[in-house]
Amino acid sequence: MNYTSIIGIVAGLFTACSLLPQLIKIIKEKKVEDLSIGMFVTLMIGLALWITYGILKNDLPIIATNVFSLLLNISILILRFKYSRN
Amino acid sequence: MNYTSIIGIVAGLFTACSLLPQLIKIIKEKKVEDLSIGMFVTLMIGLALWITYGILKNDLPIIATNVFSLLLNISILILRFKYSRN
Repeated sequence: MNYTSIIGIVAGLFTACSLLPQLIKIIKEKKVEDLSIGMFVTLMIGLALWITYGILKNDLPIIATNVFSLLLNISILILRFKYSRN
Repeated sequence: MNYTSIIGIVAGLFTACSLLPQLIKIIKEKKVEDLSIGMFVTLMIGLALWITYGILKNDLPIIATNVFSLLLNISILILRFKYSRN
């Protein structure tokens, strides 16, 4: 594996894990009003398309990192609606 | 261009544009307390690494979509600190 591939994998891990601090913050504070539903819905569509792309290209790192992101994203969206005061 | 590439490009556009609704919401409402700083810092590192990866692979779509995301991300982070009540 060359260093370009390693940078790609590390980049994927960072973007995939970026939703984790937001999920932890929501679970701790149960406050979601300032979060944009549009952001997480748009991201969810994008991630589903990346998974489709990974499946078509038979690229396991793309599939794995985006499935992980999608699960975090869906969890955030569910809590966004659950804790919404309206 | 085959349909797999088109799916990849559309996926990139969705993930790149996902930060836009959050940025608009912050500008409108000036409320940021529920947003995780850790999320946007982690994402910023990931996006910078994706841009590095795109430069090393000489892949313009990867560079362009991630530069766009990085600019949105930096704008959100600046406003996150600006509008923080603390």
